[in-house]
Amino acid sequence: MIDKEEIQQEIVQAVEKVKKTNPMAGSITNSVTINFVANAQLAVGGSAAMVYLPDEGEFLAKAGGATYINVGTLFPIYEETLPRTAKALYEAGKPWVLDPVAIGIGELRTRLLLQFKEYKPSVIKGNASEIIALAGLWDLEGGIQQSKVRGVDSTDSVIAAKAAAIALAKWTGGAVAVSGETDFITNGTVQVFSHGGSHFFEKITGAGCSLGGVMAVYLSMASPFIAALTASAVYNLAGYRAERQVDGPGRFQTQFLDELYKATAKEIADNPFDIEEAEV
Amino acid sequence: MIDKEEIQQEIVQAVEKVKKTNPMAGSITNSVTINFVANAQLAVGGSAAMVYLPDEGEFLAKAGGATYINVGTLFPIYEETLPRTAKALYEAGKPWVLDPVAIGIGELRTRLLLQFKEYKPSVIKGNASEIIALAGLWDLEGGIQQSKVRGVDSTDSVIAAKAAAIALAKWTGGAVAVSGETDFITNGTVQVFSHGGSHFFEKITGAGCSLGGVMAVYLSMASPFIAALTASAVYNLAGYRAERQVDGPGRFQTQFLDELYKATAKEIADNPFDIEEAEV
Amino acid sequence: MIDKEEIQQEIVQAVEKVKKTNPMAGSITNSVTINFVANAQLAVGGSAAMVYLPDEGEFLAKAGGATYINVGTLFPIYEETLPRTAKALYEAGKPWVLDPVAIGIGELRTRLLLQFKEYKPSVIKGNASEIIALAGLWDLEGGIQQSKVRGVDSTDSVIAAKAAAIALAKWTGGAVAVSGETDFITNGTVQVFSHGGSHFFEKITGAGCSLGGVMAVYLSMASPFIAALTASAVYNLAGYRAERQVDGPGRFQTQFLDELYKATAKEIADNPFDIEEAEV
Repeated sequence: MIDKEEIQQEIVQAVEKVKKTNPMAGSITNSVTINFVANAQLAVGGSAAMVYLPDEGEFLAKAGGATYINVGTLFPIYEETLPRTAKALYEAGKPWVLDPVAIGIGELRTRLLLQFKEYKPSVIKGNASEIIALAGLWDLEGGIQQSKVRGVDSTDSVIAAKAAAIALAKWTGGAVAVSGETDFITNGTVQVFSHGGSHFFEKITGAGCSLGGVMAVYLSMASPFIAALTASAVYNLAGYRAERQVDGPGRFQTQFLDELYKATAKEIADNPFDIEEAEV
Repeated sequence: MIDKEEIQQEIVQAVEKVKKTNPMAGSITNSVTINFVANAQLAVGGSAAMVYLPDEGEFLAKAGGATYINVGTLFPIYEETLPRTAKALYEAGKPWVLDPVAIGIGELRTRLLLQFKEYKPSVIKGNASEIIALAGLWDLEGGIQQSKVRGVDSTDSVIAAKAAAIALAKWTGGAVAVSGETDFITNGTVQVFSHGGSHFFEKITGAGCSLGGVMAVYLSMASPFIAALTASAVYNLAGYRAERQVDGPGRFQTQFLDELYKATAKEIADNPFDIEEAEV
Repeated sequence: MIDKEEIQQEIVQAVEKVKKTNPMAGSITNSVTINFVANAQLAVGGSAAMVYLPDEGEFLAKAGGATYINVGTLFPIYEETLPRTAKALYEAGKPWVLDPVAIGIGELRTRLLLQFKEYKPSVIKGNASEIIALAGLWDLEGGIQQSKVRGVDSTDSVIAAKAAAIALAKWTGGAVAVSGETDFITNGTVQVFSHGGSHFFEKITGAGCSLGGVMAVYLSMASPFIAALTASAVYNLAGYRAERQVDGPGRFQTQFLDELYKATAKEIADNPFDIEEAEV
């Protein structure tokens, strides 16, 4: 039996530990939204550090509480940096978040994402099309070989990605979060639908990337499943609140960071979610 | 005879098609303003995707409705990425926007901008000094060989760039937009002065770059001339409106994105502009 | 004897010259906060230009009034770009600001920072841990060999960095600014404590980087000591004012840029500071 109150208690603890200890989560992330990722990580109480070079990736892997890897924009040096960083994380038993942005575009991205299969990211976060495509690339159930990702956008619904998400979570032994109108989070045995958010998430760049960065912050202090759920909850709460105070995407971004900052542990744990046993 | 109402009708159609179909415009653009470019593209109803690597540039060239190339900050890999992407665009007959930022600075930039002459960008957008320098580099009328660009700023007036703009438009068969206090847009046979905007455009970074990115969004759905004119009009309208609500460049940026998002097709078409036959 | 009123007069002049002449300060800076650096430079009245390539760095070194070098995120090409740019600055007698962000992380960063010792940056700006680590790397008094930098954060107090700051200033013949709750600025013979600021500086990314970029703007028009002091004063003033109008880090950023823009020369000179002879 799943005890929802116990889950909420763990969310409260994750949020409070982060606010108290200000854990550093290093990132190798795309240059489009890198500033927003760092600001979101700081807003929830974490600390941010971003690098590009191989030995710096290895350094952060060991020094950080958890690490965020987002393949949104690749530089040539990433051919070395990303496998070496992922290997360092895996070998040190350090948790990390993978964001397979734009999977299917370009030869290097495909090669890197294939390599990550063995380094088992603790949390995989993506939109529905990305999750389905990653399961396909890794030859897991629910995946399809042909990516339906359009640039950085999803063309699939969250529900369509359930089987792929569960298969990925079973493979890694961690958690998978599928972001969409309602977010889906699973650790392979239980599944959660997290509610809230805002239609403005699609009208700004970086809502998804910064969610991944914030998951890495909580992952410094909580299990993959609780980290993914806590980050989704604070995003859904802050997005919902920010939307009610603005009428455009510019002020939404600004207000959203403020709401991330102001949300209390209890409010985050109380953000609506449904939890049940995982089933495809 | 030029029918202004017909032009306005085409602007309305461009705006409405973009809001309805959410076209993707890929970009290879500078890292200083890349976030603002993406957010502006999303605010007007488009979708954004940014890359750095050669095969990814080729992929976006084929997959996107139109592509934005801004040479503001160059990485070494751009020696391959930019010519291959421009060639792919040209060979596929796909429209693209060139923003020759900081023309005259550095050897690679000059070499890349020279190569672009044969790949005929559908829209060229720049400040007066950049347009004059590009016409000079391409050995066209109205150009001067010695760039007067100061970093990323113009030291020439929009009127001084008229001849260069018309010559460039005649060479490409597309449109040229010279941004300044009043914007000048031409397709080589007609010319437009688009009014509005804000003095804050010079107090924030990325007003020009994001204008180029938004031109690429409209270029997915309209001719080069209408795309350049529509983007200039929505910028002039949103800038004018935003300025009236703020007293500094920070809130201006935020409010400007909101006004981009809220402007209706009719309001954009009604933003003041003068149109006449092109003459040097 | 130190004449505080004379110092204030020099601050007024620096601010007014910048507002009047709009000097360009080129930057080679990290990609996380590059947009915020440029916007802060524009807000105080300067002009910004950012590059990555070696010959472009040399070009900006010669063309700009002063240059800002921040090693926060390194690309492989920086192995060439940064030494060539620093050498060009040194040989041309052009002033520049060094921001030794994340000193201690990675082999290339250490090697570059070592090379900079001979090119004597006019202003060195950092948090306490960075300043202590740089003095250590350069084998100067007050430094320690083992960096205590945690990612990009300081683990030392400003006072702990006094000896290192004075030793660095004596070595370069320029100024050193240690940012913290109270900022410490010295030219090796006098020392200043500059008051104000905001607790939100730690809750956004780029407060430190953009301060360095703004120092480069004032350095185009003033001595290293006055430039460092003026930039610290406007940051402390604008931070203090912005904090009083907001309740979160999102709106703080926006409001802070507005306050940078609105601060007058007299207000900046009047921002509280203590000045005395330098002593360890």
